[in-house]
Amino acid sequence: MTASRRSDIDPFRAMDVLAEANRMIAQGDSVLSLAVGQPAAPAPAVARAAARHMLEHGRIAYTDALGRRDLRERIARHYSEAYDQSLAADRIMVTTGSSAGFNLAFLAAFDPGDRIAIAAPGYPAYRNILRALGLIPVEIEVDRSTEYVLTAEHLRSAHEAGSIAGVLVASPANPTGTMTPREELRRLVEYADAQGIRFISDEIYHGLAYGKAEATALEFSQRPIVVNSFSKYYCMTGWRIGWLVLPPDLTRAAERIGQSLYISAPELSQVAATAVFDARDKLDRVRDGYVHNRDLLIDRLPALGFRDIAPIDGAFYAYAAIPEGETSSTAFARAILENCHVAITPGTDFDPRRGERFVRLSYACDNATLSEALDRIAANSPR
Amino acid sequence: MTASRRSDIDPFRAMDVLAEANRMIAQGDSVLSLAVGQPAAPAPAVARAAARHMLEHGRIAYTDALGRRDLRERIARHYSEAYDQSLAADRIMVTTGSSAGFNLAFLAAFDPGDRIAIAAPGYPAYRNILRALGLIPVEIEVDRSTEYVLTAEHLRSAHEAGSIAGVLVASPANPTGTMTPREELRRLVEYADAQGIRFISDEIYHGLAYGKAEATALEFSQRPIVVNSFSKYYCMTGWRIGWLVLPPDLTRAAERIGQSLYISAPELSQVAATAVFDARDKLDRVRDGYVHNRDLLIDRLPALGFRDIAPIDGAFYAYAAIPEGETSSTAFARAILENCHVAITPGTDFDPRRGERFVRLSYACDNATLSEALDRIAANSPR
Repeated sequence: MTASRRSDIDPFRAMDVLAEANRMIAQGDSVLSLAVGQPAAPAPAVARAAARHMLEHGRIAYTDALGRRDLRERIARHYSEAYDQSLAADRIMVTTGSSAGFNLAFLAAFDPGDRIAIAAPGYPAYRNILRALGLIPVEIEVDRSTEYVLTAEHLRSAHEAGSIAGVLVASPANPTGTMTPREELRRLVEYADAQGIRFISDEIYHGLAYGKAEATALEFSQRPIVVNSFSKYYCMTGWRIGWLVLPPDLTRAAERIGQSLYISAPELSQVAATAVFDARDKLDRVRDGYVHNRDLLIDRLPALGFRDIAPIDGAFYAYAAIPEGETSSTAFARAILENCHVAITPGTDFDPRRGERFVRLSYACDNATLSEALDRIAANSPR
Repeated sequence: MTASRRSDIDPFRAMDVLAEANRMIAQGDSVLSLAVGQPAAPAPAVARAAARHMLEHGRIAYTDALGRRDLRERIARHYSEAYDQSLAADRIMVTTGSSAGFNLAFLAAFDPGDRIAIAAPGYPAYRNILRALGLIPVEIEVDRSTEYVLTAEHLRSAHEAGSIAGVLVASPANPTGTMTPREELRRLVEYADAQGIRFISDEIYHGLAYGKAEATALEFSQRPIVVNSFSKYYCMTGWRIGWLVLPPDLTRAAERIGQSLYISAPELSQVAATAVFDARDKLDRVRDGYVHNRDLLIDRLPALGFRDIAPIDGAFYAYAAIPEGETSSTAFARAILENCHVAITPGTDFDPRRGERFVRLSYACDNATLSEALDRIAANSPR
């Protein structure tokens, strides 16, 4: 009896850094975290009030595996309001965070041995979930030459080199913060549809774009699976709540898998999420804070020796090469945590081959925290 | 592009019945549900108060993938209090319900193609999750001859017929409510350990035993994986919160998988669960209501034509053969729902081969609901 071979996946190092930072905080250290993609702002008051009302007057129970009808209908309305897309609530499945969304999408659409294209650098859980489920991640390295965007040409090359069953594209992307231009997204979706490649669109950072316009894959086709979440723009990480938009041919398959793998998403979180759409003004002010943080990073990172900073179009991350002379982002991040009590994430989470040259800094914290974190790094800098 | 072959698992019919009942209720029908294993009682006030306090004063965030330290330590103390077992909090992983617990246990311990023994009748999600993860459920049919208990002899026969990598035993069991006697559990664990078979002990109905003593598999060995949940005795279904006790050699594997597949369990639920251990008096009164319901079912089911009722030692289910003359539990359950507006679950959820002869009735409702449901079925009965 040993651990399974398939459990021999990489750790999600940002979570290991979080656990280490929590241990240090428990010991009384003042640790500033730029490690995890988590808004410092709490869920809006209207969402917390809805949860409180449910706690006092409702009964928290299993819901339908697809989620509460009122939330599914509210999400459908969101597509009309935000994207001018008409969408049947029947195609929406409420999930326990986007984590469950990816798992359900992969299980519903792909069989063991299927090859799924993803960008490197990219969110490490893609690769880890794919491997745990017997799927083969085909990592397509992106770089400054396409502004870190995975393009239709990348996908075509990969597909011609070996049949691709699915492709997952995030825009805005983690860890780079770059966005796929609208026309490039169209080309990707159309190529995937033409080739019978299932397109999965990670739209969890929608709402957090700083200049360029956001597009949902549903503008171009009804065959993609869209993964979204209340964790980022909506500031509800610890509530573990998100959603899928499914093509009609996958809805029942995803429901069946969800019934057994999840039963249903936490109901208190479903109730709070239904209300949170009414807090856009508040959430847009949180977003304004990120714009301030982003400007601060663009201004200060180069002076701290960080290089090759990816275009920060959206989300709340900066992805940058570590200062000259540093050879390991793992060692660099550990030194920053020990010496400055600032938690950042080594790039090895996001890019197995090139990640030792890069780190990710999350700027979802408040302005003062980011400012102090940069001061601490500066004070510790050899230059 | 089609749905994956592996998504072609059975539906969890109890969840389909729940969805249908919810549609009928939304239309104004008075539907009484005996379909889902869900306490009518809400989470105890002390748990809801802890959640409310967190909503008002805390910040709901990602936690460590293994869960909040205070909850893990409280669970460890529970093993000392309830079982006189000393357990390191490091071996405890907080999970998003037992659903996540099973998924994590299977992924951490088994590789695709591994054969896992389970009892039939049994909880359908076992079979469905195993299949979705590329594992092979080996269903061992149990019956009155062993009081519906899967025994060490059953396991030995199955293992000799074809190598078994793991065995999953639930006591009290779903759907039968039967319990594995303490000495039988010891024999099972010792045989499994001796053969290198990973023992998974589903203890989610602990706290709900009506006479016989409960034993945890940890009394006999530290190699089993224990799955538990706050959904049943603790009345916290919709909160989606449970835990695993892991053998030391699987803890890091489960943590790695959890980081990517779940990130962490909902924090509000973790906070409420930490407080719920203080509500044992309240929860024991809820349990007293089940005892009343159980007696009512034992008294009335035979007169309604139900037969071959499995020994109701614990949990809150009765599993019974449908009345003579009925040939399909699916049709019978549908007729009861349409004619009596009472939701029950066809046995096909639990036993693929013999389930059309059986139904499961959950008696986790209040006494009045059960009484009225039985009256409605009686009024509709041909006899």
